[in-house]
Amino acid sequence: MPLTRVHNLSISLDGFATGEPQSAEAPFGHAGERLHEWMFATRFWDDTGAQGIDDAFAQRHGQGIGAEIMGANKFGPPGWQDDLDWKGWWGPNPPFHSPTFVLTHRPRPPMEMEGGTTFYFLDAPPAEALAAAFEAADGLDVRIGGGATVVRDFVAAGLVDMMHVVQVPIVLGRGVRLWDGLEGTEDDYDIEAVSSPSGVTHLTFTRKATVPNP
Amino acid sequence: MPLTRVHNLSISLDGFATGEPQSAEAPFGHAGERLHEWMFATRFWDDTGAQGIDDAFAQRHGQGIGAEIMGANKFGPPGWQDDLDWKGWWGPNPPFHSPTFVLTHRPRPPMEMEGGTTFYFLDAPPAEALAAAFEAADGLDVRIGGGATVVRDFVAAGLVDMMHVVQVPIVLGRGVRLWDGLEGTEDDYDIEAVSSPSGVTHLTFTRKATVPNP
Repeated sequence: MPLTRVHNLSISLDGFATGEPQSAEAPFGHAGERLHEWMFATRFWDDTGAQGIDDAFAQRHGQGIGAEIMGANKFGPPGWQDDLDWKGWWGPNPPFHSPTFVLTHRPRPPMEMEGGTTFYFLDAPPAEALAAAFEAADGLDVRIGGGATVVRDFVAAGLVDMMHVVQVPIVLGRGVRLWDGLEGTEDDYDIEAVSSPSGVTHLTFTRKATVPNP
Repeated sequence: MPLTRVHNLSISLDGFATGEPQSAEAPFGHAGERLHEWMFATRFWDDTGAQGIDDAFAQRHGQGIGAEIMGANKFGPPGWQDDLDWKGWWGPNPPFHSPTFVLTHRPRPPMEMEGGTTFYFLDAPPAEALAAAFEAADGLDVRIGGGATVVRDFVAAGLVDMMHVVQVPIVLGRGVRLWDGLEGTEDDYDIEAVSSPSGVTHLTFTRKATVPNP
Protein backbone atom coordinates (compact mmCIF):
# COMPACT_ATOMS: atom_id res chain seq x y z
CA MET A 1 0.00 0.00 0.00
CA PRO A 2 1.73 3.23 -1.10
CA LEU A 3 2.06 5.98 1.50
CA THR A 4 1.65 9.73 1.69
CA ARG A 5 4.80 11.23 3.18
CA VAL A 6 6.28 14.55 4.27
CA HIS A 7 10.06 15.03 4.48
CA ASN A 8 12.54 17.68 5.59
CA LEU A 9 9.87 20.14 6.65
CA SER A 10 11.90 22.64 8.68
CA ILE A 11 10.30 24.83 11.32
CA SER A 12 11.48 27.26 13.98
CA LEU A 13 11.02 26.70 17.73
CA ASP A 14 7.83 28.73 17.46
CA GLY A 15 6.56 26.57 14.60
CA PHE A 16 7.06 28.77 11.54
CA ALA A 17 8.02 26.99 8.30
CA THR A 18 8.78 30.27 6.57
CA GLY A 19 9.28 33.88 7.59
CA GLU A 20 7.72 36.89 5.92
CA PRO A 21 7.32 38.65 3.58
CA GLN A 22 7.98 36.04 0.88
CA SER A 23 9.32 37.46 -2.37
CA ALA A 24 11.42 36.57 -5.42
CA GLU A 25 14.51 37.81 -3.55
CA ALA A 26 13.60 36.17 -0.23
CA PRO A 27 11.59 32.96 -0.77
CA PHE A 28 11.51 32.36 3.01
CA GLY A 29 11.13 36.00 4.02
CA HIS A 30 13.14 37.16 7.03
CA ALA A 31 14.00 33.52 7.83
CA GLY A 32 16.49 33.60 4.96
CA GLU A 33 18.25 30.24 4.70
CA ARG A 34 18.38 29.67 8.46
CA LEU A 35 15.71 26.96 8.46
CA HIS A 36 17.69 24.87 5.97
CA GLU A 37 21.33 25.25 6.94
CA TRP A 38 21.19 21.82 8.60
CA MET A 39 20.31 20.33 5.19
CA PHE A 40 22.90 22.24 3.19
CA ALA A 41 25.56 20.61 5.40
CA THR A 42 24.48 17.07 4.46
CA ARG A 43 25.68 14.74 1.71
CA PHE A 44 22.08 14.79 0.46
CA TRP A 45 22.60 18.42 -0.57
CA ASP A 46 26.34 18.65 -1.18
CA ASP A 47 28.75 15.99 -2.46
CA THR A 48 31.20 16.81 0.33
CA GLY A 49 28.55 17.04 3.08
CA ALA A 50 28.29 15.06 6.29
CA GLN A 51 26.69 11.63 6.42
CA GLY A 52 25.39 11.51 9.98
CA ILE A 53 21.88 11.63 11.35
CA ASP A 54 20.84 14.78 9.45
CA ASP A 55 21.85 13.14 6.18
CA ALA A 56 20.10 9.86 7.07
CA PHE A 57 16.83 11.75 7.48
CA ALA A 58 17.35 14.08 4.52
CA GLN A 59 18.09 11.25 2.07
CA ARG A 60 14.64 9.78 2.57
CA HIS A 61 13.20 12.72 0.65
CA GLY A 62 13.33 10.90 -2.67
CA GLN A 63 13.41 7.24 -1.67
CA GLY A 64 10.39 5.38 -3.04
CA ILE A 65 8.66 8.59 -4.12
CA GLY A 66 6.70 8.57 -7.38
CA ALA A 67 5.08 12.02 -7.30
CA GLU A 68 4.98 15.25 -5.31
CA ILE A 69 2.19 17.65 -4.40
CA MET A 70 3.16 21.22 -3.56
CA GLY A 71 1.32 24.46 -2.82
CA ALA A 72 1.32 27.53 -5.04
CA ASN A 73 3.53 29.39 -2.54
CA LYS A 74 6.27 26.79 -2.92
CA PHE A 75 6.27 26.97 -6.71
CA GLY A 76 6.96 30.69 -6.95
CA PRO A 77 6.87 34.09 -5.29
CA PRO A 78 3.56 35.93 -4.83
CA GLY A 79 2.18 36.78 -8.29
CA TRP A 80 3.96 34.04 -10.27
CA GLN A 81 0.61 33.15 -11.81
CA ASP A 82 0.83 36.38 -13.82
CA ASP A 83 4.20 35.41 -15.33
CA LEU A 84 3.65 32.87 -18.12
CA ASP A 85 7.43 32.23 -18.34
CA TRP A 86 7.79 31.26 -14.65
CA LYS A 87 8.92 27.63 -14.38
CA GLY A 88 9.62 27.38 -10.64
CA TRP A 89 12.69 28.27 -8.55
CA TRP A 90 14.76 25.29 -9.55
CA GLY A 91 16.07 25.89 -13.09
CA PRO A 92 15.76 23.47 -16.03
CA ASN A 93 16.36 20.30 -13.94
CA PRO A 94 14.25 20.52 -10.75
CA PRO A 95 15.09 18.19 -7.84
CA PHE A 96 11.77 16.33 -7.93
CA HIS A 97 12.43 13.89 -10.79
CA SER A 98 8.80 12.82 -10.91
CA PRO A 99 5.34 14.14 -11.76
CA THR A 100 4.85 17.18 -9.51
CA PHE A 101 1.41 18.62 -8.84
CA VAL A 102 1.16 22.32 -8.06
CA LEU A 103 -2.07 23.30 -6.29
CA THR A 104 -3.32 26.63 -7.61
CA HIS A 105 -6.62 28.30 -8.29
CA ARG A 106 -5.22 29.38 -11.66
CA PRO A 107 -4.06 26.23 -13.42
CA ARG A 108 -1.98 26.31 -16.63
CA PRO A 109 -0.87 23.56 -19.06
CA PRO A 110 1.70 20.99 -17.84
CA MET A 111 5.42 21.82 -18.14
CA GLU A 112 7.87 19.05 -18.90
CA MET A 113 11.28 19.78 -17.42
CA GLU A 114 14.60 17.88 -17.54
CA GLY A 115 15.38 15.00 -15.19
CA GLY A 116 11.91 13.49 -15.02
CA THR A 117 10.02 16.38 -13.46
CA THR A 118 6.76 17.41 -15.11
CA PHE A 119 4.74 20.14 -13.38
CA TYR A 120 0.98 19.68 -13.44
CA PHE A 121 -1.25 22.51 -12.22
CA LEU A 122 -4.33 21.52 -10.32
CA ASP A 123 -7.22 23.33 -8.67
CA ALA A 124 -8.47 20.57 -6.39
CA PRO A 125 -9.08 19.70 -2.71
CA PRO A 126 -6.51 17.49 -0.93
CA ALA A 127 -8.15 14.09 -1.46
CA GLU A 128 -8.69 14.70 -5.16
CA ALA A 129 -5.16 15.98 -5.68
CA LEU A 130 -3.82 12.95 -3.84
CA ALA A 131 -5.79 10.57 -6.05
CA ALA A 132 -4.27 12.21 -9.14
CA ALA A 133 -0.78 12.01 -7.64
CA PHE A 134 -1.11 8.32 -6.74
CA GLU A 135 -2.32 7.61 -10.26
CA ALA A 136 0.83 9.31 -11.60
CA ALA A 137 3.13 7.74 -8.99
CA ASP A 138 2.59 4.30 -10.48
CA GLY A 139 2.63 2.31 -7.24
CA LEU A 140 5.20 4.43 -5.43
CA ASP A 141 4.64 6.84 -2.53
CA VAL A 142 3.50 10.44 -2.80
CA ARG A 143 5.35 13.27 -1.09
CA ILE A 144 3.53 16.33 0.21
CA GLY A 145 6.24 18.86 -0.50
CA GLY A 146 4.92 21.86 1.39
CA GLY A 147 4.70 24.66 2.24
CA ALA A 148 3.27 24.55 5.71
CA THR A 149 -0.26 25.48 4.67
CA VAL A 150 -0.50 22.53 2.30
CA VAL A 151 1.01 20.08 4.77
CA ARG A 152 -1.38 21.30 7.44
CA ASP A 153 -4.36 20.86 5.09
CA PHE A 154 -3.37 17.27 4.24
CA VAL A 155 -2.69 16.34 7.87
CA ALA A 156 -6.01 17.88 8.96
CA ALA A 157 -7.76 15.84 6.26
CA GLY A 158 -6.20 12.67 7.71
CA LEU A 159 -4.30 11.96 4.50
CA VAL A 160 -0.69 11.85 5.74
CA ASP A 161 0.89 8.51 6.73
CA MET A 162 4.25 9.80 7.89
CA MET A 163 5.71 13.24 8.46
CA HIS A 164 9.30 14.24 9.14
CA VAL A 165 9.63 17.67 10.74
CA VAL A 166 12.96 19.31 11.57
CA GLN A 167 12.93 21.78 14.42
CA VAL A 168 15.63 24.44 14.14
CA PRO A 169 16.63 26.34 17.31
CA ILE A 170 15.64 29.83 16.20
CA VAL A 171 12.60 31.95 17.13
CA LEU A 172 11.15 33.57 13.99
CA GLY A 173 8.24 35.41 15.57
CA ARG A 174 6.21 35.64 12.35
CA GLY A 175 5.51 33.78 9.13
CA VAL A 176 3.42 30.69 8.34
CA ARG A 177 2.81 28.30 11.24
CA LEU A 178 2.73 24.55 10.74
CA TRP A 179 0.70 23.61 13.80
CA ASP A 180 -2.35 25.86 13.49
CA GLY A 181 -5.51 23.77 13.40
CA LEU A 182 -3.70 20.52 14.24
CA GLU A 183 -4.73 20.23 17.91
CA GLY A 184 -4.67 16.59 19.02
CA THR A 185 -2.43 15.37 16.17
CA GLU A 186 -0.68 13.16 18.75
CA ASP A 187 -3.84 11.01 18.95
CA ASP A 188 -3.30 9.81 15.39
CA TYR A 189 0.49 9.46 15.28
CA ASP A 190 3.34 7.83 17.12
CA ILE A 191 5.85 10.63 17.55
CA GLU A 192 9.59 10.15 17.89
CA ALA A 193 12.01 12.97 18.67
CA VAL A 194 15.76 12.74 18.20
CA SER A 195 18.21 15.60 18.52
CA SER A 196 21.21 15.92 16.23
CA PRO A 197 24.69 17.20 17.09
CA SER A 198 23.97 19.96 14.55
CA GLY A 199 21.44 21.42 16.99
CA VAL A 200 18.24 20.51 15.15
CA THR A 201 15.69 17.99 16.41
CA HIS A 202 14.10 15.49 14.03
CA LEU A 203 10.45 14.72 14.76
CA THR A 204 8.93 11.71 13.03
CA PHE A 205 5.17 11.27 12.95
CA THR A 206 4.07 7.73 12.04
CA ARG A 207 0.35 7.17 11.67
CA LYS A 208 -0.89 4.71 14.30
CA ALA A 209 -1.98 1.36 12.93
CA THR A 210 -5.33 1.86 14.63
CA VAL A 211 -6.07 5.04 12.68
CA PRO A 212 -7.81 4.15 9.42
CA ASN A 213 -6.62 5.65 6.15
CA PRO A 214 -9.68 7.57 4.88
CA MET B 1 27.70 36.25 40.31
CA PRO B 2 24.26 34.75 41.03
CA LEU B 3 22.10 33.83 38.05
CA THR B 4 18.50 34.14 36.98
CA ARG B 5 17.25 30.71 35.90
CA VAL B 6 14.19 28.99 34.47
CA HIS B 7 13.64 25.25 34.97
CA ASN B 8 11.22 22.55 33.87
CA LEU B 9 9.11 24.89 31.77
CA SER B 10 7.05 22.43 29.72
CA ILE B 11 5.52 23.39 26.39
CA SER B 12 3.68 21.62 23.60
CA LEU B 13 5.03 21.28 20.05
CA ASP B 14 3.10 24.42 19.19
CA GLY B 15 4.64 26.31 22.11
CA PHE B 16 1.83 26.44 24.66
CA ALA B 17 2.85 26.23 28.33
CA THR B 18 -0.74 25.82 29.44
CA GLY B 19 -4.06 25.03 27.82
CA GLU B 20 -7.30 26.87 28.41
CA PRO B 21 -9.51 27.75 30.18
CA GLN B 22 -7.56 27.72 33.45
CA SER B 23 -9.68 27.10 36.54
CA ALA B 24 -9.52 25.73 40.07
CA GLU B 25 -10.45 22.30 38.70
CA ALA B 26 -8.09 22.48 35.70
CA PRO B 27 -5.02 24.62 36.46
CA PHE B 28 -3.63 23.88 32.98
CA GLY B 29 -6.96 23.97 31.15
CA HIS B 30 -7.51 21.36 28.46
CA ALA B 31 -3.82 20.39 28.66
CA GLY B 32 -4.58 18.59 31.92
CA GLU B 33 -1.42 16.96 33.25
CA ARG B 34 -0.07 16.04 29.81
CA LEU B 35 2.67 18.67 29.82
CA HIS B 36 4.12 17.33 33.06
CA GLU B 37 3.85 13.55 32.84
CA TRP B 38 7.56 13.38 31.96
CA MET B 39 8.32 15.01 35.33
CA PHE B 40 5.94 12.88 37.38
CA ALA B 41 7.92 9.84 36.20
CA THR B 42 11.21 11.13 37.63
CA ARG B 43 12.86 10.59 41.01
CA PHE B 44 12.67 14.40 41.41
CA TRP B 45 8.90 14.05 41.71
CA ASP B 46 8.42 10.53 43.04
CA ASP B 47 10.66 8.49 45.34
CA THR B 48 10.37 5.48 43.04
CA GLY B 49 10.82 7.47 39.82
CA ALA B 50 13.46 7.06 37.11
CA GLN B 51 16.89 8.65 37.41
CA GLY B 52 17.81 9.17 33.75
CA ILE B 53 18.07 12.28 31.66
CA ASP B 54 14.63 13.67 32.59
CA ASP B 55 15.52 13.41 36.27
CA ALA B 56 18.95 14.99 35.75
CA PHE B 57 17.29 18.04 34.26
CA ALA B 58 14.36 18.14 36.70
CA GLN B 59 16.59 18.00 39.80
CA ARG B 60 18.24 21.28 38.90
CA HIS B 61 14.99 23.03 39.79
CA GLY B 62 16.06 23.65 43.38
CA GLN B 63 19.85 23.42 43.23
CA GLY B 64 21.47 26.69 44.30
CA ILE B 65 18.17 28.57 44.27
CA GLY B 66 17.55 31.18 46.97
CA ALA B 67 14.26 32.71 45.80
CA GLU B 68 11.52 32.31 43.19
CA ILE B 69 9.46 34.80 41.22
CA MET B 70 6.11 33.61 39.85
CA GLY B 71 3.18 35.20 38.06
CA ALA B 72 -0.29 35.65 39.53
CA ASN B 73 -1.65 32.92 37.23
CA LYS B 74 0.73 30.37 38.71
CA PHE B 75 -0.25 31.17 42.30
CA GLY B 76 -3.94 30.51 41.87
CA PRO B 77 -6.91 30.18 39.54
CA PRO B 78 -8.51 33.29 38.01
CA GLY B 79 -10.03 35.37 40.83
CA TRP B 80 -7.84 34.09 43.69
CA GLN B 81 -7.18 37.71 44.64
CA ASP B 82 -10.80 37.87 45.89
CA ASP B 83 -10.27 34.92 48.26
CA LEU B 84 -8.37 36.09 51.33
CA ASP B 85 -7.91 32.47 52.47
CA TRP B 86 -6.17 31.35 49.25
CA LYS B 87 -2.62 30.23 50.02
CA GLY B 88 -1.59 28.74 46.67
CA TRP B 89 -2.11 25.29 45.14
CA TRP B 90 0.51 23.51 47.17
CA GLY B 91 -0.86 23.01 50.71
CA PRO B 92 0.88 23.98 53.97
CA ASN B 93 4.40 22.99 52.77
CA PRO B 94 4.93 24.35 49.24
CA PRO B 95 7.80 22.94 47.14
CA PHE B 96 9.69 26.23 46.91
CA HIS B 97 11.47 26.25 50.31
CA SER B 98 12.60 29.84 49.86
CA PRO B 99 11.22 33.38 49.66
CA THR B 100 8.75 33.32 46.76
CA PHE B 101 7.59 36.51 45.08
CA VAL B 102 4.16 36.53 43.49
CA LEU B 103 3.68 39.28 40.92
CA THR B 104 0.18 40.72 41.19
CA HIS B 105 -1.48 44.07 40.78
CA ARG B 106 -3.33 43.41 44.05
CA PRO B 107 -0.63 42.71 46.66
CA ARG B 108 -1.46 41.38 50.13
CA PRO B 109 0.65 40.86 53.29
CA PRO B 110 3.34 38.13 53.21
CA MET B 111 2.34 34.54 54.11
CA GLU B 112 4.83 32.36 55.95
CA MET B 113 4.34 28.69 55.10
CA GLU B 114 6.06 25.53 56.34
CA GLY B 115 9.35 24.30 54.89
CA GLY B 116 10.97 27.68 54.32
CA THR B 117 8.54 29.14 51.80
CA THR B 118 7.28 32.65 52.46
CA PHE B 119 5.04 34.20 49.80
CA TYR B 120 5.59 37.90 49.15
CA PHE B 121 3.17 39.76 46.90
CA LEU B 122 4.63 42.38 44.64
CA ASP B 123 3.28 44.83 42.06
CA ALA B 124 6.52 45.59 40.21
CA PRO B 125 8.15 45.40 36.77
CA PRO B 126 10.63 42.54 36.09
CA ALA B 127 13.89 44.32 36.97
CA GLU B 128 12.52 45.64 40.24
CA ALA B 129 11.05 42.27 41.23
CA LEU B 130 14.36 40.62 40.40
CA ALA B 131 16.29 43.06 42.60
CA ALA B 132 13.98 42.22 45.51
CA ALA B 133 14.38 38.49 44.87
CA PHE B 134 18.18 38.66 44.73
CA GLU B 135 18.17 40.61 47.98
CA ALA B 136 16.12 37.81 49.56
CA ALA B 137 18.17 35.03 47.91
CA ASP B 138 21.22 35.93 49.93
CA GLY B 139 23.84 35.21 47.29
CA LEU B 140 22.06 32.29 45.67
CA ASP B 141 20.34 32.17 42.26
CA VAL B 142 16.79 33.29 41.51
CA ARG B 143 14.32 31.07 39.67
CA ILE B 144 11.68 32.53 37.39
CA GLY B 145 8.98 29.99 38.10
CA GLY B 146 6.47 30.81 35.40
CA GLY B 147 3.94 30.82 33.91
CA ALA B 148 4.84 31.46 30.33
CA THR B 149 3.82 35.12 30.38
CA VAL B 150 6.19 35.91 33.21
CA VAL B 151 9.07 33.93 31.70
CA ARG B 152 8.51 35.70 28.39
CA ASP B 153 8.56 39.12 30.09
CA PHE B 154 11.84 38.37 31.88
CA VAL B 155 13.50 36.95 28.75
CA ALA B 156 12.33 39.92 26.68
CA ALA B 157 13.82 42.26 29.31
CA GLY B 158 17.16 40.48 28.93
CA LEU B 159 17.12 39.32 32.54
CA VAL B 160 17.37 35.52 32.16
CA ASP B 161 20.78 33.81 32.27
CA MET B 162 19.66 30.27 31.61
CA MET B 163 16.39 28.67 30.64
CA HIS B 164 15.43 25.00 30.54
CA VAL B 165 12.40 24.27 28.35
CA VAL B 166 10.88 20.82 27.91
CA GLN B 167 9.07 20.20 24.66
CA VAL B 168 6.34 17.58 24.94
CA PRO B 169 5.13 15.89 21.71
CA ILE B 170 1.51 17.05 21.81
CA VAL B 171 -0.26 19.78 19.83
CA LEU B 172 -2.46 21.85 22.17
CA GLY B 173 -3.83 24.34 19.65
CA ARG B 174 -4.69 27.00 22.26
CA GLY B 175 -3.52 28.39 25.57
CA VAL B 176 -0.61 30.65 26.54
CA ARG B 177 2.35 30.67 24.15
CA LEU B 178 5.91 30.90 25.42
CA TRP B 179 7.55 32.24 22.26
CA ASP B 180 5.39 35.27 21.43
CA GLY B 181 7.51 38.41 21.27
CA LEU B 182 10.81 36.51 21.56
CA GLU B 183 11.91 36.72 17.91
CA GLY B 184 15.69 36.48 17.64
CA THR B 185 16.21 34.93 21.09
CA GLU B 186 18.87 32.70 19.48
CA ASP B 187 21.10 35.77 19.07
CA ASP B 188 21.50 36.02 22.85
CA TYR B 189 21.70 32.35 23.82
CA ASP B 190 23.59 29.20 23.03
CA ILE B 191 20.86 26.62 22.56
CA GLU B 192 21.28 22.89 23.13
CA ALA B 193 18.61 20.31 22.30
CA VAL B 194 18.62 16.76 23.60
CA SER B 195 15.82 14.25 23.22
CA SER B 196 14.92 11.81 25.97
CA PRO B 197 13.75 8.19 25.60
CA SER B 198 10.55 9.41 27.29
CA GLY B 199 9.71 11.33 24.12
CA VAL B 200 10.32 14.87 25.36
CA THR B 201 13.13 17.12 24.16
CA HIS B 202 15.10 19.22 26.63
CA LEU B 203 16.13 22.64 25.32
CA THR B 204 18.75 24.55 27.30
CA PHE B 205 19.29 28.25 26.65
CA THR B 206 22.57 29.59 28.05
CA ARG B 207 23.16 33.30 27.73
CA LYS B 208 26.17 33.97 25.51
CA ALA B 209 29.18 35.37 27.32
CA THR B 210 29.15 38.27 24.87
CA VAL B 211 25.67 39.37 25.89
CA PRO B 212 25.89 41.79 28.82
CA ASN B 213 23.69 41.30 31.87
CA PRO B 214 21.66 44.53 32.05
